[in-house]
Amino acid sequence: MIGKTIDEMQIGDTAEFTKTVTETDVYLYAGVTGDLNPAHINETFAKTTPFKGRIVHGMLSAGLISAVFGVNLPGAGTIYVSQNLEFKRPVRIADTITARVEIIEKNPEKNRVTFRTTCLNQDGKVVVDGEAVVLPPLPLKS
Amino acid sequence: MIGKTIDEMQIGDTAEFTKTVTETDVYLYAGVTGDLNPAHINETFAKTTPFKGRIVHGMLSAGLISAVFGVNLPGAGTIYVSQNLEFKRPVRIADTITARVEIIEKNPEKNRVTFRTTCLNQDGKVVVDGEAVVLPPLPLKS
Amino acid sequence: MIGKTIDEMQIGDTAEFTKTVTETDVYLYAGVTGDLNPAHINETFAKTTPFKGRIVHGMLSAGLISAVFGVNLPGAGTIYVSQNLEFKRPVRIADTITARVEIIEKNPEKNRVTFRTTCLNQDGKVVVDGEAVVLPPLPLKS
Amino acid sequence: MIGKTIDEMQIGDTAEFTKTVTETDVYLYAGVTGDLNPAHINETFAKTTPFKGRIVHGMLSAGLISAVFGVNLPGAGTIYVSQNLEFKRPVRIADTITARVEIIEKNPEKNRVTFRTTCLNQDGKVVVDGEAVVLPPLPLKS
Repeated sequence: MIGKTIDEMQIGDTAEFTKTVTETDVYLYAGVTGDLNPAHINETFAKTTPFKGRIVHGMLSAGLISAVFGVNLPGAGTIYVSQNLEFKRPVRIADTITARVEIIEKNPEKNRVTFRTTCLNQDGKVVVDGEAVVLPPLPLKS
Repeated sequence: MIGKTIDEMQIGDTAEFTKTVTETDVYLYAGVTGDLNPAHINETFAKTTPFKGRIVHGMLSAGLISAVFGVNLPGAGTIYVSQNLEFKRPVRIADTITARVEIIEKNPEKNRVTFRTTCLNQDGKVVVDGEAVVLPPLPLKS
Repeated sequence: MIGKTIDEMQIGDTAEFTKTVTETDVYLYAGVTGDLNPAHINETFAKTTPFKGRIVHGMLSAGLISAVFGVNLPGAGTIYVSQNLEFKRPVRIADTITARVEIIEKNPEKNRVTFRTTCLNQDGKVVVDGEAVVLPPLPLKS
Repeated sequence: MIGKTIDEMQIGDTAEFTKTVTETDVYLYAGVTGDLNPAHINETFAKTTPFKGRIVHGMLSAGLISAVFGVNLPGAGTIYVSQNLEFKRPVRIADTITARVEIIEKNPEKNRVTFRTTCLNQDGKVVVDGEAVVLPPLPLKS
């Protein structure tokens, strides 16, 4: 039931998760985090901004990266150590976002793995870029 | 209706938002992001981990930082440029988390403001630490 | 499919709806309305108030009155004209609230019905009191 | 951390909160309150009504007033005493609603403040009108 241990992963390994982000996602996220920035929940205001409409919270898209770590690579039992994020482009309601992670460094002594983490929209444009460090699950004792 | 412009903010200014994070928050966040890591939504699994129970997604706590930027300081119209995060301690369901931001650098030429960003639990322990860069709203044209 | 017309209702008629209000209800309501008052979502703060803990939004309990009108009496097709509310006692998470409505006046010429509207907790104490005017559905044309 | 005390507020002071009300909001509100009136959640039925489609619960829009009291004016620690509401016009899904409160009376002896409370749509039309009485937070003891 646990995800991959550090010995089961190689530099260059990738995994991804894709989701069409809906208005419902944005509104639930606003409620959970308290981020009621009118850029996200007030269409009248948002039309006056450079983005000409409501945009998705950048940290919501970044949450899809966490999903890849927790579900796919390394998977169950992973512990998040750090995440750096650059928000490159706005994400609009109904965009389809792919969070992709790729292993760029392994430190077996400390059981730490470093990933390049990227979110792309349906046109392949990078919307979030960054790096993360996670602790993959340790081998089960035999 | 817009938040504070760069001239209206000073190094040392702070703002914060506090929320008791509930099981509901964790489950809605899991659904929105797809982060179904059993550490968050499987109590049977979670009991076997070092944390001895389900923990809150680190990126959910980090979302409270975004709330402070979008609602309080700078407020409406803020654009998120980057966010670095270190996950220092686990957050458990029913913990009361305070996201606090403090201005540590201003760059009026580029309209960029750098913040120290911290999330603390009800015991005052740091659970998330990091820095962020945002673009505060520009003054309305007169 | 429509609810009761004014001729099908008599002064003294009553209806009610009962629900145990959960933490989930409070958090979803906070997200939908934007009412992030710490009295509702910050247990650390709420413990310092006279209520010694988080309380349910008064307007959430009042929403159960709307449910009785729209579902039971008069039922489908009812139009809400006005509602007066007095918040008499705090409602706590896990309280079981009964919204009760009773017809106190009928005006067939204007198709208006006035109700006494009350919300009670599991101990029979009034938590919300008031009056409402609604337009019951008109008879279907034959 | 508390909101404004009665001495910090003047007759004529105003505050507001604006939100685009989505189908998600209507459905979550229906689930939380139990108000499953087909006017709100049954498009087939709603098309046969004078409104020609589903409308937003009047009490949901009214909930935005509560948000202004709890978050902005007076803010944290406010206690709701009473609220009168007249539902003037239907609100449709995707309308952008502004809840606005304005102080019209102060009673320092009883620590009571009376507000005119209004909800307007994106065209500036009043959809909910009324008055409220609240108890602002008391000054912290020194």
